[in-house]
Amino acid sequence: MEKTKIFLDENDMPKRWYNIQADLPKPLPPVYSPRTLKRATLEELSVIFPMEILKQEVSQERWINIPKEILDIYAVWRPSPLYRAVRLEKALKTPAKIYFKWEGVSPAGSHKPNTAVPQAYYNMKEGTQTITTETGAGQWGSALSYATSLFDITCRVYMVRVSYDQKPYRRNLIHLWGAEVFPSPSDRTNSGRSMLQEDPNHPGSLGIAISEAVEDAATHDETKYSLGSVLNHVCMHQTVLGLESKEQLKMEESYPDIVIGCVGGGSNFSGISFPFLHDKLKGDKKDLRVVAVEPYSCPTLTKGMYAFDYGDSTKLGPIAKMYTLGHDFVPPGIHAGGLRYHGDSPIVSALYDQKIIEAQAYHQNEVFEAAILFAQTEGHVLAPETAHAVKSAIEEAKKCKQTGEEKVILFSASGHGHFDLTSYELYRDGKLADYEYPAELVKQSLQRLPKIEED
Amino acid sequence: MEKTKIFLDENDMPKRWYNIQADLPKPLPPVYSPRTLKRATLEELSVIFPMEILKQEVSQERWINIPKEILDIYAVWRPSPLYRAVRLEKALKTPAKIYFKWEGVSPAGSHKPNTAVPQAYYNMKEGTQTITTETGAGQWGSALSYATSLFDITCRVYMVRVSYDQKPYRRNLIHLWGAEVFPSPSDRTNSGRSMLQEDPNHPGSLGIAISEAVEDAATHDETKYSLGSVLNHVCMHQTVLGLESKEQLKMEESYPDIVIGCVGGGSNFSGISFPFLHDKLKGDKKDLRVVAVEPYSCPTLTKGMYAFDYGDSTKLGPIAKMYTLGHDFVPPGIHAGGLRYHGDSPIVSALYDQKIIEAQAYHQNEVFEAAILFAQTEGHVLAPETAHAVKSAIEEAKKCKQTGEEKVILFSASGHGHFDLTSYELYRDGKLADYEYPAELVKQSLQRLPKIEED
Repeated sequence: MEKTKIFLDENDMPKRWYNIQADLPKPLPPVYSPRTLKRATLEELSVIFPMEILKQEVSQERWINIPKEILDIYAVWRPSPLYRAVRLEKALKTPAKIYFKWEGVSPAGSHKPNTAVPQAYYNMKEGTQTITTETGAGQWGSALSYATSLFDITCRVYMVRVSYDQKPYRRNLIHLWGAEVFPSPSDRTNSGRSMLQEDPNHPGSLGIAISEAVEDAATHDETKYSLGSVLNHVCMHQTVLGLESKEQLKMEESYPDIVIGCVGGGSNFSGISFPFLHDKLKGDKKDLRVVAVEPYSCPTLTKGMYAFDYGDSTKLGPIAKMYTLGHDFVPPGIHAGGLRYHGDSPIVSALYDQKIIEAQAYHQNEVFEAAILFAQTEGHVLAPETAHAVKSAIEEAKKCKQTGEEKVILFSASGHGHFDLTSYELYRDGKLADYEYPAELVKQSLQRLPKIEED
Repeated sequence: MEKTKIFLDENDMPKRWYNIQADLPKPLPPVYSPRTLKRATLEELSVIFPMEILKQEVSQERWINIPKEILDIYAVWRPSPLYRAVRLEKALKTPAKIYFKWEGVSPAGSHKPNTAVPQAYYNMKEGTQTITTETGAGQWGSALSYATSLFDITCRVYMVRVSYDQKPYRRNLIHLWGAEVFPSPSDRTNSGRSMLQEDPNHPGSLGIAISEAVEDAATHDETKYSLGSVLNHVCMHQTVLGLESKEQLKMEESYPDIVIGCVGGGSNFSGISFPFLHDKLKGDKKDLRVVAVEPYSCPTLTKGMYAFDYGDSTKLGPIAKMYTLGHDFVPPGIHAGGLRYHGDSPIVSALYDQKIIEAQAYHQNEVFEAAILFAQTEGHVLAPETAHAVKSAIEEAKKCKQTGEEKVILFSASGHGHFDLTSYELYRDGKLADYEYPAELVKQSLQRLPKIEED
C-alpha cells in the first residue's frame, strides 16, 4: 500500500535548529533603536528579552543545539506527520506529487508552540517570572499560554479587543492553560489608557497590543516580552519543520522541486523552507523554487518596499530592514488574521531582495475555495492563513498538469481551522469580500518610514 | 530518550475488525420490532440499513476483513498515536504507567469517523444516494458528513435544535464537508411537524432527531439511515482502536492492567476494550479490569435496569435488551452531550450484566477538573465526554500511589474539545452545576418499558 503519512520516529527528531544566518550571501543589516535611531544595544534589548534569546538572534553559528528539556516537550507533537495528498492530486488530475507537513497536531493547533516552548524555557532558565505578549486572533497567545504552563511561568496576553470579543474560543483556550488575557487597549498600561482616552470603545490593533505587552515587560521586574514571529531566533526555532520534512522525504527517496509556505511575519515560511534553502545556498539545489504566499490585501513582499521600519505601529519595538507597507498601515480585515502584518522577517526580506525566493499573493475567496477542496479531499480543516499555501500548491500542481511534469511540491500545513469555521461559513454564504490592494494608503504610510543613517 | 508517543506504521494497521459476538459467553438476545413487538425481521430493518451492515450486525464471525478502500481512508488518521502520559504521571506522583490512545487527530476530531467511513462505503456499494442521521452536539454529524463527502453520497443531518443554535461551529463543519443540516424538530417530516405543532419553539431532543432521520430514510428511495453508536456493527468498526493499542503496547513490551473508556452509546468504549476482552474471555488475562465511565446524571449502567427497551424515545427504532433508564427519560443538560443517552450498547450491557466489565459514574465538575490537569500536563484539550475517562484513569493512578503498584492503565482519548471551550470557561467561572441523580424520573420512565415476550 502506498503511504498516506510518513512518520519519523521520535528518536530521529532533529537535535539542532538550523541558523540560516551562517549561510546568507551577505550579513543582515543591523537593528536600530526606536528611541535614538542609532544601533540598538544589547543592554536596551535585554530589558525585554532574556540573554540566550538575544544571543540566538545575532548568532552566526550554523547549528544550535536543542536542549533536552525542549526535545522532551517537542515530543508531545513532534515529529509531526508528513502527508502525501493523494486524494487532492487525484481531484486535480495532476502528475505532480503534493506533500504537506501537518502542524495542526500540536496542542495549540499550529506551528507556534515550536518557538513558544524554547522561549518559555530560556526565560525560565534566566529567572523570568512573567512573560507578556500580544495576540491577534489568538494563535500565538494560546501557544505561549501552553508553553508557560509547562515551566510554571505566569503569562499575560494582550489580545486585540475586536478579536477578544469575536473569538471567545481562543480566549478560552488561553485561560485553560492558565494565562491571563486582557482586551487591548486595556487600562493596565499608559499606551492602553491613552488609546482608551481617545476612544473608550477602541477596537484595538496588533500594534497597540504589542506596545502594551512591551510596556508591561519593561516596567515590571522579572518580566520579559515574547514575540511569536518575525525575529531571527523565532524563524530558527521553526526550522524543525523543514528539517523533519527533509528526513521524511528522504524516506520516500524524494526531494521537493517547490517549497511553499504562507507568510505573515514569516516564521512558518522560514521553518519549512530554510533547511532546503541551505542546500540551494550551498549550490547543491540550484533549481529549487521557494515560494512565500501572502494575502493580496496585505502584500508586503509583492508590493512593499525594502527599507528600515519599525516592527510595531507605535514605534516601541526595534527598527529593522525589511519589506514593509509602512508601520502605520492597517490592512483590510481579512479572515487570515495571522497574515495581517505590515512588515516581514528581516531574513525572509533579505532572501526576497536577493531573488533567492519568490512571492505570490491571492485574494481570500480563492483561498477559501482551495481550502474547501482540500477539506473535501484530504479531510483536514485548515486555518485561513495556511489555506494561502494550499492555494499556491494547487496552482503549481495545475501547471504540472499542463506541462506533464511530475514535480514534487511541499507545503507547510501550519495550523488547523477549528476556530475559524465562522469564516468558512461566511465564504459558503458568499459573504466574504475581496479587497482591492490599498495602494494609496500604502504610499502614504511609506512616507513615514524612520530616517536611518546606516553606519 | 523514553518515548512520549508510540507510532504504528501505516502498513501495520489492523486489516480486520474484531467481532466480540464470536466470544460472548452466551449469544445476545434477539432484537424486536417496535411495531409488532415480535422479533424484528431483516426485511423490516433493510428499509433503513444496507444489507452488508445488517449482516455485520448479526455476524458470529470472529474477524471481519476491512476492505482496501476503507483502509486507504483510515490512513488519513490511522494508526492514531498511543501516548505515554509521563507529565500527568509525574504530577500525580504515581508509580502507575498511564497510556492514552489519541483519536483527536482524525479530521472530524474524534473516533466517530472509524465507523462513519465504513458505513458510507457499504452504502455506496449498495447504491445508496443519500444517508440521513441525527446528531446532538454534532460530533457524529460532522464525522458522517466527512465520510459521505468521500463517496459522493448526499448527507442530511437532523441536529437537535438547541445545539444547532448554540454550537454553530460543528454545524459549520458539517456544511464544510458538503452535508445539509437541519434544526430538529424540522418541518421536513411528520415527526418533526407534530412536535412543532405542539411547540413552535421546541428545543428538540436526540429522540426526536432520530425519528426524523429514520422517517426521512424510510420515505425516500435510495435513502438509508446511519447510527453512530450503540449497534453491534458500530462497536465492531471501532475495534481498530484497541487492536492498534495492543500492537503499540506490545512495542513497549507492555499490556494493560486496566482499560478505561467513557460510555454514551458505547462505541468508543467497545473500540478500546473489546480486543483486550478477547484475551480475558479466552481465559488468558483473567485479572484484566475493564472500566466503563459514565456521567452521574445519566448513569445507565450504574443505576439503570437490564431490560428490553426502545433505542429512541419516539419508539421508531428496534427494541433491544440493554441497560436503560427508560426510553423517555431526559437526562439533565450536562456538557458531555455525547454521554446523554438513556440506553447502552446491547453488547456492553450484556458484558456488564455478566460482570465481565465494571462501571463508574462521575459528576461533571470533577470531570472538568481532571481535564484541566490533563491539558496543563499533557497539552491536549479533551472533549468533555473523553474527560470522564481521564477522571477515572487519574483515580486509578492515585490508588496505585497508595498501594505502590506499578499498574499499566490505558484509556481512550476519544476526541478533542476544540468546540467545547465554552464549557471549560463555564467550569473555570464556577458556573457548572452538578446534578443529583434523577432517581424519581428514572423510576417513572422504567415503568413504561415495552412488554416483550421472549420466544
